[in-house]
Amino acid sequence: MEFRRKDLLGIAELEPGEILHILDTAASLKEISTRAIKKVPTLRGKTVVTMFYEPSTRTRMSFEIAAKRLSADTLNLTVAASSAVKGETLEDTAHNLEAMEPDILIIRHPASGAPHFLAKRLRCGVINAGDGIHEHPTQALLDLLTIREAKGRLSGLKVAIVGDILHSRVARSNIHALTKLGSRVTVAGPATLIPPYLETLGVEVTYSLEEAVRGADVIMMLRIQLERMGQMFFSTLREYSTYFGLGLRHLKLAKEDVIVMHPGPMNRGVEISPEVADGVHSVILQQVANGVAVRMALLYLMVGGEKE
Amino acid sequence: MEFRRKDLLGIAELEPGEILHILDTAASLKEISTRAIKKVPTLRGKTVVTMFYEPSTRTRMSFEIAAKRLSADTLNLTVAASSAVKGETLEDTAHNLEAMEPDILIIRHPASGAPHFLAKRLRCGVINAGDGIHEHPTQALLDLLTIREAKGRLSGLKVAIVGDILHSRVARSNIHALTKLGSRVTVAGPATLIPPYLETLGVEVTYSLEEAVRGADVIMMLRIQLERMGQMFFSTLREYSTYFGLGLRHLKLAKEDVIVMHPGPMNRGVEISPEVADGVHSVILQQVANGVAVRMALLYLMVGGEKE
Amino acid sequence: MEFRRKDLLGIAELEPGEILHILDTAASLKEISTRAIKKVPTLRGKTVVTMFYEPSTRTRMSFEIAAKRLSADTLNLTVAASSAVKGETLEDTAHNLEAMEPDILIIRHPASGAPHFLAKRLRCGVINAGDGIHEHPTQALLDLLTIREAKGRLSGLKVAIVGDILHSRVARSNIHALTKLGSRVTVAGPATLIPPYLETLGVEVTYSLEEAVRGADVIMMLRIQLERMGQMFFSTLREYSTYFGLGLRHLKLAKEDVIVMHPGPMNRGVEISPEVADGVHSVILQQVANGVAVRMALLYLMVGGEKE
Repeated sequence: MEFRRKDLLGIAELEPGEILHILDTAASLKEISTRAIKKVPTLRGKTVVTMFYEPSTRTRMSFEIAAKRLSADTLNLTVAASSAVKGETLEDTAHNLEAMEPDILIIRHPASGAPHFLAKRLRCGVINAGDGIHEHPTQALLDLLTIREAKGRLSGLKVAIVGDILHSRVARSNIHALTKLGSRVTVAGPATLIPPYLETLGVEVTYSLEEAVRGADVIMMLRIQLERMGQMFFSTLREYSTYFGLGLRHLKLAKEDVIVMHPGPMNRGVEISPEVADGVHSVILQQVANGVAVRMALLYLMVGGEKE
Repeated sequence: MEFRRKDLLGIAELEPGEILHILDTAASLKEISTRAIKKVPTLRGKTVVTMFYEPSTRTRMSFEIAAKRLSADTLNLTVAASSAVKGETLEDTAHNLEAMEPDILIIRHPASGAPHFLAKRLRCGVINAGDGIHEHPTQALLDLLTIREAKGRLSGLKVAIVGDILHSRVARSNIHALTKLGSRVTVAGPATLIPPYLETLGVEVTYSLEEAVRGADVIMMLRIQLERMGQMFFSTLREYSTYFGLGLRHLKLAKEDVIVMHPGPMNRGVEISPEVADGVHSVILQQVANGVAVRMALLYLMVGGEKE
Repeated sequence: MEFRRKDLLGIAELEPGEILHILDTAASLKEISTRAIKKVPTLRGKTVVTMFYEPSTRTRMSFEIAAKRLSADTLNLTVAASSAVKGETLEDTAHNLEAMEPDILIIRHPASGAPHFLAKRLRCGVINAGDGIHEHPTQALLDLLTIREAKGRLSGLKVAIVGDILHSRVARSNIHALTKLGSRVTVAGPATLIPPYLETLGVEVTYSLEEAVRGADVIMMLRIQLERMGQMFFSTLREYSTYFGLGLRHLKLAKEDVIVMHPGPMNRGVEISPEVADGVHSVILQQVANGVAVRMALLYLMVGGEKE
């Protein structure tokens, strides 16, 4: 199987074979970041532009590092410094960037669907780096790579996804990815933070953290995104933490070799206890390292590789 | 004719031969941006610094892409993060940057004349990327390149420049450029937005959009820069749009092969209708592409090329 | 003597031999910035990340230019765009960056000790680019290089450091450096801006500018950092300037070949008169040029050089 898409907009539309091909490519590129000279000339003379309409440290830097390690040139357009303040439409901004002949646009936007809207209108490739509460496909891909490294497989696993499911594009992308590849997903969170349609996606729903993690191979904790919630969906952070914060005692309910994941940035002491975040089951920093590898793979496949 | 200036501060001081030499160089470099490997080693080991004291997406990115495609290193100094907040003078900031041995400083500043002030005091080259309401020479150069591509010539054309002439450095640079090269410029806009001295620059003035575009080869719409105006010079945006917004019906008054230009970012539905902006006469995205080519030409001529 | 440290956190912990080795390396690398092609391939494929939690023009750009001239890739994390707003701890942010395999992290932080905190927890090298009121070691190193270029030696000199000693990490790093290398330091400033423990560092204290500069080989003026002071430590800027602003008349009290230094950005007319800042004794712009050289030396020694 190859990956021959112009854009990467979401996991929902990918074939299992495409996902696995991206992961295999990432696994083979991962070694570059551990060399003394962390750079290959593959994308020399290519132009990668990031357009981030929401603040982000790790995702933007991860893409930028991925591009530089492949020798591409990178340019960052950030909101504050952009024409957005001058009232230009997103489409006009994107067409203007495209006229400068970038090879790929990487976009994060608070509006769900913004990358799809652009992808339809632009000749150049578009990667969704997170759109509203819709999808964050590169996060799901790096999560899959991390799970596969730890478990040796992506099928037949029990995965618990815990927290604010309603607003989480990370959850949505991972649910698509894990169910496509044959794992079983249980989501848990306060009733106010679990959307009603979830069972149609083939996942189990519970309102108990204990139940979700029982027998789990993988526990994926979500960030409480206070900045995205607008209003409170639970009474207090302390109450949230009491019922849905992952502590060492919960790990005893899971498989012995359970891994704990978090997309970051973490609210320590809210959704995850420091003991768990820094403990032996945590693969949180492996996730970050795999983020660079997965993004290198996508840039390679979409810009430099099989498209030529 | 060659281009042997240390600085590019405005169109006013350029000879027609210099302008044409820049355009010819841009035309020959333009092809680089369409290659699979969009990069030549011409400016390897050169340092290009942008100092933007006003927000801008396209101009800064256009310069940065131009520099990278010539293999120069680029550094961006933006206002918010700069020592400006610490009360340092512009001259001290510039001298400090110069001490780091950049090959060229690209400056945008709200004060008319700021780049000239620096150019006199610095050894390194200075490019004016827009100074107050004075000049924006690289915009005029990219406009000329776009007109020449469409019309095959720069003389004997009728060019209408429409909108807020008073505050527009784009208008000022284009008026200098077009009249030097033998085209006839008509400006149009509300009486409050047309400065009294304009006729001394050799242009015709009208207060009617219809009159300005009649028989025009080129229509150049200006952005209503609400953020730069400080106070209102017309009653409402709706009234402005009624009298000076370019619609399809105006194009019928112009030459059949008229081209429509806009420096961006556009206020769709204010100074230009979406039908015109996206229509067959629009060359707005060619302008953006030519921006990269013109800036590559300047960097090549000033940093890498004929100065050695 | 070699320089084999993982981190550069402060001058306090360096041996004189290490300091001199850094200066010798800087002196030999300085010539690169004056070449037509200002770039050597030494750090190709290395990744240098700056994390600036305080605004800065010259220090960040100086590091970035230094890295690029050695062919390293650079990435900038600035506060506003960072996860700091999302409540992530500094340690988590740093661990996340480290997981992306940078070769070195350069950090500026308002909390004294922040770089030390990180250095202990990270495998990758950490350079302190200024921490609170504690140290700013690269500033002291560039000051030493500048003094040595002017005086031919670093021992037996009389150095006056004048201004807000209390809040100055520049003063603290220079006091450590100069006393280690055998020069005599006199500090001067308003009594409210001189901390009580200073004499234990082996410096002389005076409250008179005249007394401090009498017979001085070097006068180092400090910036009045209004943005860092929180409250006023003197009645008015005018009063400060009257008693502690360096004018031409003070230079007559110093050695004939005295040099005047300032770390920038300068408040002209407050701590230093324009006549002195721009006069023949001023080496302020040499300091900036030497900043690039010293940072190239550190990156070379810590990332590319003797560690391999």
